[in-house]
Amino acid sequence: MSEPFPADSVGLVEPRLLHFAEPLTLECGRQLPHYDLMVETYGTLNADASNGVLICHALSGNHHAAGYHSPNDRKPGWWDSCIGPGKPIDTDQFYVVSLNNLGGCHGSTGPASQNPETGRPYGPDFPVITVRDWVNSQARLADHLGIQQWAAVVGGSLGGMQALDWSTTYPDRLRHAVVIAATPKLTAQNIAFNEVARQAITSDPDFCAGRYLEEKTMPRQGLMLARMVGHITYLSDASMGEKFGRELREQAYQFGFDVEFQVESYLRYQGERFSENFDANTYLLMTRALDYFDPARPHGNDLSAAMAQASCRFLVLSFSSDWRFAPARSEELVNALIDARRNVSYSQIEAPWGHDAFLIPTPRYTNLFTAYMQRVAKEHTHAG
Amino acid sequence: MSEPFPADSVGLVEPRLLHFAEPLTLECGRQLPHYDLMVETYGTLNADASNGVLICHALSGNHHAAGYHSPNDRKPGWWDSCIGPGKPIDTDQFYVVSLNNLGGCHGSTGPASQNPETGRPYGPDFPVITVRDWVNSQARLADHLGIQQWAAVVGGSLGGMQALDWSTTYPDRLRHAVVIAATPKLTAQNIAFNEVARQAITSDPDFCAGRYLEEKTMPRQGLMLARMVGHITYLSDASMGEKFGRELREQAYQFGFDVEFQVESYLRYQGERFSENFDANTYLLMTRALDYFDPARPHGNDLSAAMAQASCRFLVLSFSSDWRFAPARSEELVNALIDARRNVSYSQIEAPWGHDAFLIPTPRYTNLFTAYMQRVAKEHTHAG
Repeated sequence: MSEPFPADSVGLVEPRLLHFAEPLTLECGRQLPHYDLMVETYGTLNADASNGVLICHALSGNHHAAGYHSPNDRKPGWWDSCIGPGKPIDTDQFYVVSLNNLGGCHGSTGPASQNPETGRPYGPDFPVITVRDWVNSQARLADHLGIQQWAAVVGGSLGGMQALDWSTTYPDRLRHAVVIAATPKLTAQNIAFNEVARQAITSDPDFCAGRYLEEKTMPRQGLMLARMVGHITYLSDASMGEKFGRELREQAYQFGFDVEFQVESYLRYQGERFSENFDANTYLLMTRALDYFDPARPHGNDLSAAMAQASCRFLVLSFSSDWRFAPARSEELVNALIDARRNVSYSQIEAPWGHDAFLIPTPRYTNLFTAYMQRVAKEHTHAG
Repeated sequence: MSEPFPADSVGLVEPRLLHFAEPLTLECGRQLPHYDLMVETYGTLNADASNGVLICHALSGNHHAAGYHSPNDRKPGWWDSCIGPGKPIDTDQFYVVSLNNLGGCHGSTGPASQNPETGRPYGPDFPVITVRDWVNSQARLADHLGIQQWAAVVGGSLGGMQALDWSTTYPDRLRHAVVIAATPKLTAQNIAFNEVARQAITSDPDFCAGRYLEEKTMPRQGLMLARMVGHITYLSDASMGEKFGRELREQAYQFGFDVEFQVESYLRYQGERFSENFDANTYLLMTRALDYFDPARPHGNDLSAAMAQASCRFLVLSFSSDWRFAPARSEELVNALIDARRNVSYSQIEAPWGHDAFLIPTPRYTNLFTAYMQRVAKEHTHAG
């Protein structure tokens, strides 16, 4: 009989809910009196706690980055392709920490949690959270785990922005920042797509001004639409073309507005599935965190000045067909890092899958990522 | 005192409603027993009726392509930059015909018209209209006007698709097809954006399964969302960036979900304005006509075989920053025309405004377009 899980999997994992009793002051000026973070870890923390790697998730991600929650799980965590024994983030060498961010909907304190002031769900009263707030809450998580300095903070997309913010907010607390398929700030077009998603959600009558949980309903249609728009921006025109082309479900045109093209069917299915498993208020928060992220802003829009605060080394990766956060956005960051005389490795990887490419293992991506992380691992092996 | 209108304007124009009493059989197999077309004309038809130019409109266009409806009009017709005395489509030389397409919502028979079978608005019972149906109805319009052969059929975007279909459906009835910012078929991504727009409209509770007029309501939110998504695809990332960047309405972040960035404000305003002036069922029809257009389909997906039926000459223009119908889509058409040994002039024009560039006069665009149309004009001048 074969093993229940692949040999390069971290196998069965169990999330833990950690409670943080001290108040957290947020960028918006408000305080969370206390909060929980849902966390998974893979691998073993070494004696001097120097092999910790923090994984930061993107818009719709969560703490379950690798392995399986039960022997019957059909799908592993969302970044299982990159985390595990012998994988780029090698769990034989690193102690990997992955969490659901504050404001999320997978166990950490968020809009669906009980508001201690009212005894009812926070809903729209949950404070607007920023990338900086996440980084601050993650620093407390590091304290809790006894990790003074991460070997690396790693993330793709919105996760990459958290890695970037770590580098300037806690320069002494990480040796490497790995920033994949990210951007130092959203463009007007990026914000526009987020605004469409928010409008779709808030204009759904079942949104009930954000109090849908109390009203025992869910803004499913709005969330579905938001996800459909988002999903288009995660894929490239070419990859959608290759996957679906203009294929019809029936032989001929039906002359109506029901699903006819395979791509319509796929998008509706993805949107519906997502709307059953995600919290609408969390979606609003996540898109706003994206909009607001702009480390150059407090430095008179001088990104080099912002990055000069960092002292870690950087790996920056972009993907050729990513039009959500195009390679030019990564190069803007790389140029600022070079200007600021930081140590940075950069590569634009040829891949046809658009923004989603950061989730898809390809030889060049895997090799580059593995080689870099191997060098990171050598540092703590020599030190330890 | 200055003239009320610019000297290169066609000035005050008056739309005419033309009635067509003979039934029109549509591609879907259904029949319209009779129908009206709202039409404007500019310039004078010459003695041998050889100087007619047909303007085909795009998704949200209408018959009012040039000039003003009243001395108080602040804005001229939608393509006034290209139609008028001395302009690319020179009304001193051409008799220009512009109509609101069947299924439209600006006077021609469409979903908001009375269904003769029920005495109530057609609503969702209006048949699904295709590009071919439009071309057939436009051919009847040509008959009515006494135009056996157009000097040129001209259109941008969905309008260009109509010009293309004219060339193969009625090869003897046009001498030139001018196909601007168009595509020989939609990609999966194009269809996906249309599907999001349709879902936004049909999931609006005020859509009432398409019978909103009878229910005395309007799916304003859905139509607004549809337009917001569409609008993003008409602009380029760069032009949105130049126009709005990350500019805020207030000095600092407000930490909420109301409008904060100028681009959000602009999109909402555009969406709201559109939703007050456009019919939702028409929007569904127009997007489906786009999806279905695929002249290569009946020819085993061989576009050259399709275009071999044409005998007119072609001007094809694309715009460098157009990502809705990218230059590569126009080049696909141009290559098929060359394969089929048709006479084609092609240019990709450098312009930063995305798909909307076809509405914006720039020196290179205006010069190319004017030069081509001047050659077209010479033909009928010599003949006439």
